[in-house]
Order: sequence, then structure tokens, then C-alpha cells
Amino acid sequence: MPNGKSMAGAGEQKPVRRGKTANQRADAQRNRARILAAAPDAFRKDPDASVADIAAEAGIGRMTLYGHFKTRAELIEAALVESIEKGDEVLADVPLDGDPASALQRLIASSWTLVDRSRALLAAAQKELPASRIREMHEKAEARMRGLLLRGQREGAFRSDLPLTWLLTTAHVVMNGAAEEARAGRLEPDDAPWFIQAVLLPAFARPPGVETAS
Amino acid sequence: MPNGKSMAGAGEQKPVRRGKTANQRADAQRNRARILAAAPDAFRKDPDASVADIAAEAGIGRMTLYGHFKTRAELIEAALVESIEKGDEVLADVPLDGDPASALQRLIASSWTLVDRSRALLAAAQKELPASRIREMHEKAEARMRGLLLRGQREGAFRSDLPLTWLLTTAHVVMNGAAEEARAGRLEPDDAPWFIQAVLLPAFARPPGVETAS
Repeated sequence: MPNGKSMAGAGEQKPVRRGKTANQRADAQRNRARILAAAPDAFRKDPDASVADIAAEAGIGRMTLYGHFKTRAELIEAALVESIEKGDEVLADVPLDGDPASALQRLIASSWTLVDRSRALLAAAQKELPASRIREMHEKAEARMRGLLLRGQREGAFRSDLPLTWLLTTAHVVMNGAAEEARAGRLEPDDAPWFIQAVLLPAFARPPGVETAS
Repeated sequence: MPNGKSMAGAGEQKPVRRGKTANQRADAQRNRARILAAAPDAFRKDPDASVADIAAEAGIGRMTLYGHFKTRAELIEAALVESIEKGDEVLADVPLDGDPASALQRLIASSWTLVDRSRALLAAAQKELPASRIREMHEKAEARMRGLLLRGQREGAFRSDLPLTWLLTTAHVVMNGAAEEARAGRLEPDDAPWFIQAVLLPAFARPPGVETAS
């Protein structure tokens, strides 16, 4: 149960009266946001960035950081959640109507931009968190792709002879594979959207001679 | 430089004379083999199996195990190397001549059997070792696939509009993705070869209207 003091604070409409507490809360929120924003940069500079490195990147004391995140894993998870949420706002603006194959190309291109920007953080997360947890965090992005694939199946553009979950897995691993190749310097990030589309579109297309779902 | 004693031992043709030393060496080799063979089983029973669990599975003392492998990571790496080497012997028997697409199907089916058998060990390795190191360990298997894809490109069965490295990456991540799905209980291991082929064959096929490489 929260104590009376914090309950009064939580329902406060005009925090001006409790100036200092509100300021402290605002400070804490700002610090948290700075830490989360700094994490991707810290990992871009050093794939094995420590909590101290991330604190330095955020311009925040290490003890302050530990006040927000108890462990490196907790910080990485929060930073990835934040990065995925921001990404979802971008993806929400991608038009997914019209020809399903063209819509899939647009979704892949936008998704890649996001994956590419956060790939250092993603790599750190892959070392620290189970693959299943990372997949779970991409639920919203996956729901968007699922909706498009379902519509494409109904309209006969995409294949219905494989479970949708397998098509989604394929999209997920091919996209992550491109991120890993870009990290290793074997793939130019600018080439990635075309590379990803070039394998996913024929892989998802309705095979010749196979009936549609409906 | 090795000392005189071990040099004499190393060149020994009839180890009977130095019975005990040869026995000890044979014992050590047997123990090592037992540990490496036990590791995949231990990880199948518990994805987070400890060194003690693996020692117990092998029926060997923990101290003996540490005599062979200093760390859990070292043991996992050696077990994966061993498992991949045994797998390579199986893959060497897969006929890769004739129609490239059919040969690819055979190679995928055999590779899956191996991946499926060692997927618990592979998952442990993915947590402990960098993705690049695991990919490197699959070099021989990848060389086999590369040779087949190259021939398929030359004969016009496979596409030449994407770099071969990207096709190999795609094969690698789709296969691992299937292993991960099987681990999560979302994919029946027996379905996997067909699922993998169903996406890779059209993804690798020469797109209509695209010229062959030669």
C-alpha cells in the first residue's frame, strides 16, 4: 500500500504547491530519460559499455543511475523498451493499405531504419536477455506485420500454406540477421532494406498453383 | 618447449611399456569425451545447466571436469565444436549433385536433424559466446552450402542479384530461427525441414526475368 504522502502527491493536479517534491520528481524523470537516451549511444561507442560508461554518456552520476536501474540488464531492458516504443510511433505512420507486397516493402524499409539505429543496443540486449523476451518486446511491431500478412493472405498475395507465426519468425530473424551483418561490416546498412525485401517477398508470395486461404 | 619426458611419450609407438602414463592419457581422453558427450544432454534437461550439472551427467567429478575446462564458456565452446564436427561427418555424406534446388532440400533436411539434436547446447552457446564466434564454428557446414549455392547460381537455378554472403546469412538465421521456435514449443521439430525449405527455396530461386551469372 502506498503511504498517505505519496498518494496525495500522485493525485496532485497543481504540483506548484509542493514545489520541491514536484521538482525532484521532474528531475528524476529527466534523469531517467537521459539515461535511456544515452544507452544506445554508449553501446554504439562500445558494444560492452558498462553502467559507468552509460552514466558518463548521460552526464549523470553512477549512483544516480543505480537509483533508477538496479542492474545493467534492467537498464538495457528499459532502454530497449523505450527505443521500441519510439519506433512504434514511427511505424504507426507507415501506410499499410493498397497492394500487400508494396505495403510490406514500406514496412520493412521503415523497420530497418529503426533496427539499424538501435542495433548496438539490440546486440547488448541479445547478450543480456533471453531471445524470447526480446521477441516479446517487439509484440506491437509484430502485430502490425501480422495484420498486413493476414490481409495479404486473404487477398491471395501472400501464401497460406505456412503458419503465420513462421512467416513472422522468418521476417524477425532475417531483419536481425541483417543487423548482425551490418555490425560485422559485411553489409552496407543502406543495402539492407533491399536485401531483406529481396528474400522476404518471394518467400512470402503465394507459390504458383497454390489456392488462396478464402 | 615440451620437456623430454612428454616428448618421449608423444612419439611412443607401443605405449604398453609406459603403461600407467598411457593409461592416464587414455583416461583423460575418455573423460574429456564423456564430458563433451554429456553436455548436450545436460542442456536438454536444463537450459541453464551448471558445470556441476554437466559433471554429474557425465558421471565425473567436478574437479576432474575443471582439469579439462577452466570455465563453463570453455566447456560449452568445446562441446559445440565437437557436436559440429560430428555433424560435418554426417553432412559430408549428403549427395549435393544433380538439381541444385533438390540438393538444397537434402542439405537443409540433414542440417536440421543436426541442429535439432544440439539445439539446447546451441542455445546455451548463444548466451555464452558472441554470435560471430558461433557463425565461425559453422564454417565447414557453411562452405558446403556456399559451394552448392555457387553451382546453383552458375547453372541459373539460384539468384545472382544478391551477394552469396547474404544468402548464406539468410539460410543460417532461418535455420536458427526454426530451432528457437522448436525450443519455445511453437514449431513441431518434424515440420521444420519443410518450413525452412518453403521459405528458402523461393527466396533463393532466380527471380523471373533476371539473367543468370554466367
